Amino acid sequence: MGSRIARLALTKDGLELVGAFGRRPERAGADLGGVIGLERDLGIPLAGDLSRAVAEFRPDVAIQATCSTIADARDEIWTLVEGGAHVVTIAEEMAFPHRRSPETAGAIDGLAVDRGVVVLGTGINPGFVLDTLLVALTGVCAEVEAIVATRVNDLSPYGPSVLSSQGVGLTPAAFSRGLGDGSVVGHIGFPESIHMIAAALGWEIDRIEETREPIISTVRRETSSVVVHPGEVAGCKHVAVAYIGGRPAITLVHPQQVLPGLEGIETGDRIEVIGVPTLRLAGNPEIPGGEGTAALAVNMIPRVMAAPPGLRTMIDLPVPSAMMGDARGLVGRGRPERNPARKDNPGIKG
Amino acid sequence: MGSRIARLALTKDGLELVGAFGRRPERAGADLGGVIGLERDLGIPLAGDLSRAVAEFRPDVAIQATCSTIADARDEIWTLVEGGAHVVTIAEEMAFPHRRSPETAGAIDGLAVDRGVVVLGTGINPGFVLDTLLVALTGVCAEVEAIVATRVNDLSPYGPSVLSSQGVGLTPAAFSRGLGDGSVVGHIGFPESIHMIAAALGWEIDRIEETREPIISTVRRETSSVVVHPGEVAGCKHVAVAYIGGRPAITLVHPQQVLPGLEGIETGDRIEVIGVPTLRLAGNPEIPGGEGTAALAVNMIPRVMAAPPGLRTMIDLPVPSAMMGDARGLVGRGRPERNPARKDNPGIKG
Repeated sequence: MGSRIARLALTKDGLELVGAFGRRPERAGADLGGVIGLERDLGIPLAGDLSRAVAEFRPDVAIQATCSTIADARDEIWTLVEGGAHVVTIAEEMAFPHRRSPETAGAIDGLAVDRGVVVLGTGINPGFVLDTLLVALTGVCAEVEAIVATRVNDLSPYGPSVLSSQGVGLTPAAFSRGLGDGSVVGHIGFPESIHMIAAALGWEIDRIEETREPIISTVRRETSSVVVHPGEVAGCKHVAVAYIGGRPAITLVHPQQVLPGLEGIETGDRIEVIGVPTLRLAGNPEIPGGEGTAALAVNMIPRVMAAPPGLRTMIDLPVPSAMMGDARGLVGRGRPERNPARKDNPGIKG
Repeated sequence: MGSRIARLALTKDGLELVGAFGRRPERAGADLGGVIGLERDLGIPLAGDLSRAVAEFRPDVAIQATCSTIADARDEIWTLVEGGAHVVTIAEEMAFPHRRSPETAGAIDGLAVDRGVVVLGTGINPGFVLDTLLVALTGVCAEVEAIVATRVNDLSPYGPSVLSSQGVGLTPAAFSRGLGDGSVVGHIGFPESIHMIAAALGWEIDRIEETREPIISTVRRETSSVVVHPGEVAGCKHVAVAYIGGRPAITLVHPQQVLPGLEGIETGDRIEVIGVPTLRLAGNPEIPGGEGTAALAVNMIPRVMAAPPGLRTMIDLPVPSAMMGDARGLVGRGRPERNPARKDNPGIKG
């Protein structure tokens, strides 16, 4: 994802890629061009020490794309904020960290306010399809009784780490064991999406129930990373239901698998808001996950630079939009400047 | 629309309806309850003088729902802002007034900043389906080549003034004359939606071409307000195309008619973003116009109260959301207060 985001950022007028950090120490010093799959050098050596890198590059914005959990992302975000950089993170749990980790969220918010920068979690899901887009649709409703949304996607573009987290290629018994030992996790981000929706609508959620079931293939499914034989697991059907007073208020359904089309299953996103009025919106195929997350990370840069300092979520900021002009013209009413010690420059007010 | 909005506002915890103004002088003094179709009195006499009303009621927010054009809305908005009220207007041309009337937009913005209040234009269209929602979807795109969106709706819930503005019930010849003399206008708001999209994406539009064609019915269509005989006009197919360098970049198609279902035409909203990736999202039936506009006007109140002072558009503010909790808990991080001369209380910073 980091490579994809860097390649996209390089295409945008008004954005300048000033540096890069990678977790794998053996890559330190390599030119970023080769690291992200370009056939040319960029003159930017990959840094192996984040705090030295941020002090040297003094970025206006850093995109943190190394992990999924708050626990894993926290130190990198902290270092970036301390270095005066706005942070866009695609760590799923950072999409709405206030419920899962209120102390860490509070600490990051405090540091961000102190340094005059913004921290935002975004991504396709959590971050957009099953939360921000849903919330926006409820804006046309006088009343909302319940929300039901389903995202059927195809995991075949993903590599081994994503596939194994969904149990792809396992036997049903191994899938079951994987759920038990935490190696099969399903989707990361349902509680974040649910709490984001609830915060926007003013709902108090009583409890969230999550279920993860193996999707057992009846056909052979082969991608560049995995072969699934009939009877083996093609993916994980992960469902979350949020209750208000015994009533299912938010139901999010996300079966993730490789090549569902081989069994005649169409991928797509489907949103239903049951209320006054009831709304149904659907699209096929699904909004692509990897592409969409990379685009959101880059497209939110002007929104992040224009927001008041602190830890923000997608429902706090103006709607995202594709960045087709010069990024400098899109930053609020002002223009970004190359990181001027940030503390004295607490964001640009919209 | 004003009645519908008032009825909705009365259902929301944390909102208090403190006063109302109506343009028709013969209604002044009537109790608002009867005026908006309730069977009970509200103890609020309808005011006939807006500036006296705003001085007496001292509202935090006023919803202006009396007209469609900037020229017609300007004086009421001005009076409300002078009186220290935030303003949500559903006048279509106010959804993005900066291009059609830059001077009026600038003057309203200046006064709003001076008085510490926010002015926002919203509504289902312009304001949401063919602009804000479209813009939000482009947020997942690395590149956008073109946008094509179609909204097929049913005008049967509307009364005579909306129907005649679309030429419903006219002969084709009378429709043609109506286009010439300005009595048939089609949709109001295409340039506003187009310029809102362009502003969000950073596009420069070269020109907009609009066409308005009669939808000639082949069957009898009857609503409570009109009868359309075969061969007569059931509505207006209004299309706007925005060009960038000779290329159609934004195409908005909006055939508005009564009872399209009688000819087997399904109503609905369909959005297509052609780019990387290409996205298609559709819903049937269409998001209801009147209901949706009333909901947006009320649901945007907390967003308006939390925004920095000035003239804003839907792409400047966080996504709308249904207001299902106490409105006081949704206003930024703070709480609304009963209009304390507003100037000294320049909005609540998020």
